[in-house]
Amino acid sequence: MAAETAYGDLDVYLARRKALVEEALDRFLSPETGVPERIMDAARYSLFAGGKRLRPILCLAAAEVVSGAWSDALPCACALEMIHTYSLIHDDLPAMDDDDYRRGRPTNHIVFGEGLAILAGDALLTEAFHLLARRDLMPGVVPEDRLEVIRLVARAAGMAGMVGGQVMDLQGEGQDLELPTLTDMHRRKTGALLVVSVVAGAVIAGASDGQKEILAGYGEKIGLAFQIADDILNVTGDRVMMGKSTGSDAVRGKQTFPALLGLEASRTKLADLVDGAAADARRLGERCEPLVQIAKYIMERNS
Amino acid sequence: MAAETAYGDLDVYLARRKALVEEALDRFLSPETGVPERIMDAARYSLFAGGKRLRPILCLAAAEVVSGAWSDALPCACALEMIHTYSLIHDDLPAMDDDDYRRGRPTNHIVFGEGLAILAGDALLTEAFHLLARRDLMPGVVPEDRLEVIRLVARAAGMAGMVGGQVMDLQGEGQDLELPTLTDMHRRKTGALLVVSVVAGAVIAGASDGQKEILAGYGEKIGLAFQIADDILNVTGDRVMMGKSTGSDAVRGKQTFPALLGLEASRTKLADLVDGAAADARRLGERCEPLVQIAKYIMERNS
Repeated sequence: MAAETAYGDLDVYLARRKALVEEALDRFLSPETGVPERIMDAARYSLFAGGKRLRPILCLAAAEVVSGAWSDALPCACALEMIHTYSLIHDDLPAMDDDDYRRGRPTNHIVFGEGLAILAGDALLTEAFHLLARRDLMPGVVPEDRLEVIRLVARAAGMAGMVGGQVMDLQGEGQDLELPTLTDMHRRKTGALLVVSVVAGAVIAGASDGQKEILAGYGEKIGLAFQIADDILNVTGDRVMMGKSTGSDAVRGKQTFPALLGLEASRTKLADLVDGAAADARRLGERCEPLVQIAKYIMERNS
Repeated sequence: MAAETAYGDLDVYLARRKALVEEALDRFLSPETGVPERIMDAARYSLFAGGKRLRPILCLAAAEVVSGAWSDALPCACALEMIHTYSLIHDDLPAMDDDDYRRGRPTNHIVFGEGLAILAGDALLTEAFHLLARRDLMPGVVPEDRLEVIRLVARAAGMAGMVGGQVMDLQGEGQDLELPTLTDMHRRKTGALLVVSVVAGAVIAGASDGQKEILAGYGEKIGLAFQIADDILNVTGDRVMMGKSTGSDAVRGKQTFPALLGLEASRTKLADLVDGAAADARRLGERCEPLVQIAKYIMERNS
């Protein structure tokens, strides 16, 4: 299969970028005098729980496709991962999805208790904005663009974006959501942060409005593709790959794309979205290959 | 008693500033297309639950003492109130202080359920940073200073500040904290946000480093005074004033200043702090009177 070579290259790329991001996360959120040890432990427990670092990698790739350089995007990439991690910690709480395991490890509140888990999420969200505003980082980015990044990230993470999507998810459990509502829910809950990952990277790299728009379209498509792939995996995958039970959405009464569209139509929609995202990326010029490959990777992890 | 006239004037001042802040909060966090109604309701329920708006009023007063103008500080004042409100919602959760009532009304999770209460807190925290980064606000503030405000607010609200203080509080319940630890806990949990309220207002107004330093000292003193006054009120006050049970700290096994120092020594310490804060404020020149009076007000609400 032709994609295998590219997939192999992508594996190396992803592994290198992941290492880069994790080294930076370790620097940006490290034990310090005056911070209670227990909250730092709780925040780091989930921050270093073995995620794919998709959002930071997208942020760096978007900066690189625009300007060829990614280093000024690294703090923003890490801030996005902190926000993603906070959302996972809060989503896993008993009052939300009530998950005891994530990526095969006990969730934050199982290890640290609910109170500390809530606070660890709060802390990660707050530290993300602190990171975006630090004076000693992003030397090549003008203050106006840094403010724009903060504005976009806050908008994507807030009640019009990720938090709003989680509310819709919470309210939708056990209800038969229709396709437009399901799509809208995922566009907010997962999509908004993926979109802002590429758009913020682009802003940091000094992108034109046209480039930002193309990247937003790319982000929208892979965001939805990511969710459809996740839903398909939930039906067909195995426990080891997901670190949680197969079929758990059905048990929980959560609406999914395969349930609404059928498995084959879901796979077709996924492929169309990935093709569209790859086409978007190719419009950005010669450094587009990582973004093209990441779009394909979202589908292939599901094959 | 001589203070009564000033107190009367202050009442008018506080009422006017409170109205100003509440009108702005209503504008900055209003129902909008694309935001699920339920989360907006939950956020607004706690945001408009009748607080004193002390942090925003301090922020405006600090801007005014520096430059004579407060309008550019209004979004920051509202962001601080959003952060304060988020912290109350999360603190009241069953996994934290487990309070069913605040200011005489059922707490957020009692009305909206725990899941939505957690998300309403998350949303308010995120919207605060969105507000601080909005392009259409604070026209007279240079982007560098706006970034500095975001950095200071995030630092004060995060794990080295408010969240860290809440962790210490959570861990300290039922333990005999010594005075330095109790003071440090309150310096983070309540003090940090009060300090940044005045310092951020000063940054927005273009303060010198010297002015910022004086205001930080003022904020530290009233922050601690505020907590001592609260502790004294908890021992001597009545349910109607506080909207919660008198003596609830003792029931919960929380350490307090009166328990450690005795009631009289606590009152003396409170008076010393207020005098010191008033002296700080007077060093800032002719527009210092509101800050002087607010410091006194913190003590007098307790007499």
